[in-house]
Amino acid sequence: MMKISQKIKDIAQDIKTMKVRGAGKIASSAAKALSITVQESKVKSSDELVMELEATAKLLLKTRPTAVSLPNAIRYVMHRVREAQERNCGLEDLRQATIEAASAFILNSAKAIKRIGEIGARRIEDGDCIITHCNSATVTAVLKTAFNQGKSFKVFASETRPRFQGRLTAETLSAFGIPTTLIVDSAIRFFMAKMDKAVVGADAVTANGAVVNKIGTSIMALVAHESQVPFFVTAETYKFSPETLLGQPVKIEERDSSEVVPLEELRKMPNVTIKNPAFDITPPEYIDLIITERGIIPPQAAVMIIKEEFGSITTKELWEHQTYLIRDEEP
Amino acid sequence: MMKISQKIKDIAQDIKTMKVRGAGKIASSAAKALSITVQESKVKSSDELVMELEATAKLLLKTRPTAVSLPNAIRYVMHRVREAQERNCGLEDLRQATIEAASAFILNSAKAIKRIGEIGARRIEDGDCIITHCNSATVTAVLKTAFNQGKSFKVFASETRPRFQGRLTAETLSAFGIPTTLIVDSAIRFFMAKMDKAVVGADAVTANGAVVNKIGTSIMALVAHESQVPFFVTAETYKFSPETLLGQPVKIEERDSSEVVPLEELRKMPNVTIKNPAFDITPPEYIDLIITERGIIPPQAAVMIIKEEFGSITTKELWEHQTYLIRDEEP
Amino acid sequence: MMKISQKIKDIAQDIKTMKVRGAGKIASSAAKALSITVQESKVKSSDELVMELEATAKLLLKTRPTAVSLPNAIRYVMHRVREAQERNCGLEDLRQATIEAASAFILNSAKAIKRIGEIGARRIEDGDCIITHCNSATVTAVLKTAFNQGKSFKVFASETRPRFQGRLTAETLSAFGIPTTLIVDSAIRFFMAKMDKAVVGADAVTANGAVVNKIGTSIMALVAHESQVPFFVTAETYKFSPETLLGQPVKIEERDSSEVVPLEELRKMPNVTIKNPAFDITPPEYIDLIITERGIIPPQAAVMIIKEEFGSITTKELWEHQTYLIRDEEP
Amino acid sequence: MMKISQKIKDIAQDIKTMKVRGAGKIASSAAKALSITVQESKVKSSDELVMELEATAKLLLKTRPTAVSLPNAIRYVMHRVREAQERNCGLEDLRQATIEAASAFILNSAKAIKRIGEIGARRIEDGDCIITHCNSATVTAVLKTAFNQGKSFKVFASETRPRFQGRLTAETLSAFGIPTTLIVDSAIRFFMAKMDKAVVGADAVTANGAVVNKIGTSIMALVAHESQVPFFVTAETYKFSPETLLGQPVKIEERDSSEVVPLEELRKMPNVTIKNPAFDITPPEYIDLIITERGIIPPQAAVMIIKEEFGSITTKELWEHQTYLIRDEEP
Amino acid sequence: MMKISQKIKDIAQDIKTMKVRGAGKIASSAAKALSITVQESKVKSSDELVMELEATAKLLLKTRPTAVSLPNAIRYVMHRVREAQERNCGLEDLRQATIEAASAFILNSAKAIKRIGEIGARRIEDGDCIITHCNSATVTAVLKTAFNQGKSFKVFASETRPRFQGRLTAETLSAFGIPTTLIVDSAIRFFMAKMDKAVVGADAVTANGAVVNKIGTSIMALVAHESQVPFFVTAETYKFSPETLLGQPVKIEERDSSEVVPLEELRKMPNVTIKNPAFDITPPEYIDLIITERGIIPPQAAVMIIKEEFGSITTKELWEHQTYLIRDEEP
Amino acid sequence: MMKISQKIKDIAQDIKTMKVRGAGKIASSAAKALSITVQESKVKSSDELVMELEATAKLLLKTRPTAVSLPNAIRYVMHRVREAQERNCGLEDLRQATIEAASAFILNSAKAIKRIGEIGARRIEDGDCIITHCNSATVTAVLKTAFNQGKSFKVFASETRPRFQGRLTAETLSAFGIPTTLIVDSAIRFFMAKMDKAVVGADAVTANGAVVNKIGTSIMALVAHESQVPFFVTAETYKFSPETLLGQPVKIEERDSSEVVPLEELRKMPNVTIKNPAFDITPPEYIDLIITERGIIPPQAAVMIIKEEFGSITTKELWEHQTYLIRDEEP
Repeated sequence: MMKISQKIKDIAQDIKTMKVRGAGKIASSAAKALSITVQESKVKSSDELVMELEATAKLLLKTRPTAVSLPNAIRYVMHRVREAQERNCGLEDLRQATIEAASAFILNSAKAIKRIGEIGARRIEDGDCIITHCNSATVTAVLKTAFNQGKSFKVFASETRPRFQGRLTAETLSAFGIPTTLIVDSAIRFFMAKMDKAVVGADAVTANGAVVNKIGTSIMALVAHESQVPFFVTAETYKFSPETLLGQPVKIEERDSSEVVPLEELRKMPNVTIKNPAFDITPPEYIDLIITERGIIPPQAAVMIIKEEFGSITTKELWEHQTYLIRDEEP
Repeated sequence: MMKISQKIKDIAQDIKTMKVRGAGKIASSAAKALSITVQESKVKSSDELVMELEATAKLLLKTRPTAVSLPNAIRYVMHRVREAQERNCGLEDLRQATIEAASAFILNSAKAIKRIGEIGARRIEDGDCIITHCNSATVTAVLKTAFNQGKSFKVFASETRPRFQGRLTAETLSAFGIPTTLIVDSAIRFFMAKMDKAVVGADAVTANGAVVNKIGTSIMALVAHESQVPFFVTAETYKFSPETLLGQPVKIEERDSSEVVPLEELRKMPNVTIKNPAFDITPPEYIDLIITERGIIPPQAAVMIIKEEFGSITTKELWEHQTYLIRDEEP
Repeated sequence: MMKISQKIKDIAQDIKTMKVRGAGKIASSAAKALSITVQESKVKSSDELVMELEATAKLLLKTRPTAVSLPNAIRYVMHRVREAQERNCGLEDLRQATIEAASAFILNSAKAIKRIGEIGARRIEDGDCIITHCNSATVTAVLKTAFNQGKSFKVFASETRPRFQGRLTAETLSAFGIPTTLIVDSAIRFFMAKMDKAVVGADAVTANGAVVNKIGTSIMALVAHESQVPFFVTAETYKFSPETLLGQPVKIEERDSSEVVPLEELRKMPNVTIKNPAFDITPPEYIDLIITERGIIPPQAAVMIIKEEFGSITTKELWEHQTYLIRDEEP
Repeated sequence: MMKISQKIKDIAQDIKTMKVRGAGKIASSAAKALSITVQESKVKSSDELVMELEATAKLLLKTRPTAVSLPNAIRYVMHRVREAQERNCGLEDLRQATIEAASAFILNSAKAIKRIGEIGARRIEDGDCIITHCNSATVTAVLKTAFNQGKSFKVFASETRPRFQGRLTAETLSAFGIPTTLIVDSAIRFFMAKMDKAVVGADAVTANGAVVNKIGTSIMALVAHESQVPFFVTAETYKFSPETLLGQPVKIEERDSSEVVPLEELRKMPNVTIKNPAFDITPPEYIDLIITERGIIPPQAAVMIIKEEFGSITTKELWEHQTYLIRDEEP
Repeated sequence: MMKISQKIKDIAQDIKTMKVRGAGKIASSAAKALSITVQESKVKSSDELVMELEATAKLLLKTRPTAVSLPNAIRYVMHRVREAQERNCGLEDLRQATIEAASAFILNSAKAIKRIGEIGARRIEDGDCIITHCNSATVTAVLKTAFNQGKSFKVFASETRPRFQGRLTAETLSAFGIPTTLIVDSAIRFFMAKMDKAVVGADAVTANGAVVNKIGTSIMALVAHESQVPFFVTAETYKFSPETLLGQPVKIEERDSSEVVPLEELRKMPNVTIKNPAFDITPPEYIDLIITERGIIPPQAAVMIIKEEFGSITTKELWEHQTYLIRDEEP
Repeated sequence: MMKISQKIKDIAQDIKTMKVRGAGKIASSAAKALSITVQESKVKSSDELVMELEATAKLLLKTRPTAVSLPNAIRYVMHRVREAQERNCGLEDLRQATIEAASAFILNSAKAIKRIGEIGARRIEDGDCIITHCNSATVTAVLKTAFNQGKSFKVFASETRPRFQGRLTAETLSAFGIPTTLIVDSAIRFFMAKMDKAVVGADAVTANGAVVNKIGTSIMALVAHESQVPFFVTAETYKFSPETLLGQPVKIEERDSSEVVPLEELRKMPNVTIKNPAFDITPPEYIDLIITERGIIPPQAAVMIIKEEFGSITTKELWEHQTYLIRDEEP
């Protein structure tokens, strides 16, 4: 059994206790832990180094067995480590390759939102009427970038029950100066015919291009599809889920009933139960494009992104049997 | 100019001031006013009697120019008055025909909900999972009747933002003993694949079988259509809108923004406006059947119900140029 | 309690014991029984005559509570009896009206297949390629009539498992000289793109224009719809089911498992069960036209045929609570 | 054999030689001929009068065996003649009933365009963008009426190859002052997303609500359907085709190849043939509403209009075996 | 002209005479033949070795010019041979590379069914109701693996006329202890609404993700699509057809008419012919996922699998002009 | 600032002044200019050479900032230049790599049409009826190749208003001896049910597989989709637009109004404007296959072609902010 340093254990602990939150931050922490592993390592051979890295990887994977971005970070780094190892480069080169891969992942993640904002903003046109759901950092980046480029457009935000994240979106956009209309979730079809585009974020993207996002997203996609309104999803590549390539189903978090109805009211209805799923799955046929920091792809090309970013996943299946639970990381 | 009695004026005033509320009660009051007109009348000829009736009709039509059921009541009675007049029956027979037509309309309206409950309940089967939206007296009648017949089924109720009428539905069904699940409006697609039927009420039905109902209804219809779940609408015949035969568009009530977001919160968002339409329109292609007290029809037969109940509307077009505004009559 | 004559009882018995078979023959027997009732009657008043007719009707309805055509025959005659009664015609006129209504029904039923053949044949064009399912007398009539008119066309018949009625169709058409291709049911999509029309019969037609017919019909309709091949249904009006106007669901006969797999083979599979439903339901959106002996209608006008042929069914609901089971009447 | 007066023969001749053109004028001429028949008649009994009328009817039907409106006019009058005859009214009453029916038909036809203009205009809203195809008197009436009511809207007209009737539409609307954009037929999908409504006329309407109109209409309907743009058809009731109830197919006129390409150019292409069908058929599922002078109906209610206007067509089938050829009546 | 050893000729003969049957076994034999070629080779240069390999390849390709897996095996090995050759590795290395590529292909093929079973089983959930068609080794592997994992589910098997392979499926599943329901092919739409998943095998997969499989598969896919039931295909990668990238159409085997109807019965129908295509083609839009031993992909990524497994096919087009005939390999 | 030779300047000028026309010729000129740059270069280091190449690239990109093929040529060459540079090859090798890349691009472009003709012809079958729009060199190549192979088929060509390029297609095919039918654009739906395939060219293909082509193409695709007629697009890979990966929208050329209506006629219509877009965009869901010189792909694999041909475009974004205007290059 490998000995694991205190620094690594601390990072693992912080991810586990949700001190580190959010898909991007969790992933970057994991990449950093791998980088620290080689920096601290005192081993004498490449093979030993890889064993240490795998020990760290195993520890990290256990902290949040249901996150999407965490194994992606590990897979991204380890894929490049193994490529280096196969080239029979020496210990020092392997060390270097690991640090570089971790840095590249962290840097790319850090810039992903900004880059998605730039790429997505090119699709916003003067006079557009754009509808969005929930509150997404990448969608906000797209809208803000376009607005700062001097484009004139309007946004419709659905309130996003039960937690009203749509109000947060409206408040944010309002602060930028973007004219925004807030509506209840049930009113999206009433207004859809007047929309030019729909844009939403993603919590995860599966191998076949389906998108897991806040409950109600798939309805907005269906309604947009019905009215021939282009439906765009913004998603960092670390949210693409390679496990789905191997058949892993996606599990959806069930949240507390008190979000839907006050408990005192619920007590008055003895035969009533509450169901409160946090996300739903939008099938690829309702999605026109996915905007990533690597470019814009049709959903059917999701599998290509997964292969390019995370390599062949059939050789070493360290984390294969894990099931993903998509959950809300917001405080 | 006709002299109109105080009794009639009082009824008109009660409708105008919303002391009388609800499509059924408004319509019955109007029918009653026509009955009173002939009972109080002192005229000597059929022609004079019809003139008095038309004066009453005109007064009533002005009280709530935007209601659907009110002109239906008048049209129902006057259609039969004119048929009698064309048969050249005498004054007394005409008087009698008027009173009978008004009574028939009132009686039919009173029994409509119960009758819809009976007819609709036949479509509920043991083991069904049924989804509904908002809070409808006719839907409740269908579910209660089926439950009292010993059928075992479950109901999903969407909460129906902004006014949460779905909670009211859940509470009512819970009191009957029907197992009910309450969900946010955005979650209906998440659960639709498990539903066997969707049933909603109606505020108005147009000549081509489109249904005006609480905002969000058309989304539930679209989602049910996508999943091949049969979508039923319950509607009393006095909610069918003959004016749409003549091209009258339907207007939708815009309600107060405070229903959507607390005003103090809204004030913090200077660039945000609220849109709060109370109803939407479900196209006939998403509706499988309309359950009326006269039987179950496909939406395309709505025009037939209109012709049967209210006669040829092209001959005397007393109220033709009116535009309907569908509004919420609940207290 | 009415005394019922032996002749009527015999007819009832013959229907009950399936000595009389087939929708048309059952219906005609019932109409004849009503005619005999008035011919044998010794009553002195119209009201008594109607009571006797209703007693006969009740007896007949009990013999095959699940047939579609039987109550239609009774409803057809009784609708006209009551119209006569409401005109306050005397006993003799009522007697006459009953006999005439029964005769008209029987005559119409007898000519229905021939008439459907004539009307349907007008839709067959030189060079057509026509696909059909199962074995229907009305479809055969259409094809034979068109062939006798000198039209040149080809027919594809699906074999119609489990009982291979498609072979019967092929044999019949072959005997007429019509070039016919026999295929397995699974091959219909393979050939559909080359078809010009699809024509099938019906066991029952519901108020919303759905068609109950041999299992597999709804698949042929779906496949035709996918390929934009017009889908025609031939149906005598006595197969239209007014009960569905009042919400009565249609039940489907489950037939013996030995039709699907030989019992000795089934015994070798302890965890295998057989399901063998005899019919399925084709929704109106997959049906282009229904060819009846009264003309060609879109499925949405089925409710109109029901009203015209069988009158208002809301007044006297003698047979309302009956449930229909569509079953195979072939020997 | 009946003797037919010169006046009647002249009318028949004028229809035959296309001196009388246009669906409305042909129909009115036919109705007038029936009226003249009774005015000139010297017969002594009702039965003889009906025989004379039928002789006139037969003569007229032979003049243009392929027109839609002509048999409708005859059917409209004769339906009312036979109703009168069945009431056993005397010769003079029958004569009167015939004249009245003919007048009513002629008057209704004359006012139909204006009435359709009024009803249809109610569906036009301020700010609308409306697309139309070819050149239709009823569509022009709708647009002009709405414009005269002060409504502000824009029209897109497709040029309608091969004869460029769209230019005529543009010129007419321009003369009214309505802002109009002229585009090639191939550009309709490019602009459809910005349209609020599509409105076209009709040459014929079949029993199942399909619309026969200028070639390209069905493409506009399909494209509107794809973009969820409501598609309206304006059609006088005398264009509804009862023969289709009895299975008569509709034939489409094939026009001269020189309309498509100059003959000298065609001569340079020895292996090229021209196809130039004048009309196509729009299926009812792509049509939202049909605007007639009797009100607005969904296409599925076309069969109802046919029954109401032209009576039961199954009893006397004078003209049954005729096939319709829809052709261009413009000079 | 190359001299070819007796061992290779024997393998070629066994494939030709159908002594070797089944896509997997044929492919492995071909790979083995290439391996033997280098093992027996006495040449002195890389170029000569490649020439010998190409001679073997040509011989093999002629044995069964219509199989899909056979050229895939050759292409897989030769792609790696040429890569080695381009790296200018020596004769011995080239020999080694060939043997390794052949071994890898054979090993992968041998494990493909098991691996598909593991990956596919992850998609099976407790309580699932799964429908399948025909009899597929990979589908059986998926179901058996899931069942052995303790998952509880039910299977519906369609009998698969004309050869009733569905009975074989039922018998196999029954032997495992999996509760199975056997139905006629025409009943699949009757039960589809209750299914959670549909899973079928494949005989070939084209570059655009279309699937060639037993006749009736495309109907099951269409019906599943209509009811929003996910439709999965299991396919080993050697069944992907690179030729379709170059435009080669797929031909379908026409089997004997006696499979459809006994010959003595057919003789009684002189105007009847039988059509008995063995396969049909399911378009990619009806397929949700393809489960391969390399992971799960959307059908649109089929082209990616082809490129990854078989390399660029545009450089050396040895077998380009071949046409594929998909045929039944079962004894 | 680099000094640029006169030869390069001349090429740039010829492209700018449209002396060089057509996507293929423009692209080849650009590749040639890069080749000339290195041939004329007198620099001493690899880095300097790359700087010279970039200067040439910049100059070329400015000549026709809206063409699709021009930056593809540059990107193709420069991608290979940078790969060589990264391998740290010396100056001479870099020079060689540049010349080879330019030659390969030019050669591939020159053979692309012929190769597409060969690949596409395999999809043409005896007896086919094929519809096409506008006049495309690649479509002509496909049809001519198939015809020369002895295949017997018919072609329908839509005339393609406003410039009647369909007549040119008809003339060309007629000269080959291919039986061709010329129709107006509005008639394509009338004939579509009889078509077996639709084939059109492309002016550009976006990253998500949408196709920019002559106005009306998207209507033909929609109509083909409705009738389940396979819709093929032929496109050289240099027409694939990598910029769309980065969010660049495609702009459509608006052409002169005199193409639509003669100016003297337009003057008579003061309220009429003309819109004359030259192209429209066909969404990938209406396209079955794209036939390129590299093979046949589903539209969703367009992104794969872009990556393979032009490399990763995220590293050096020389021309990123450019917007494409698709315009007509024909004289």
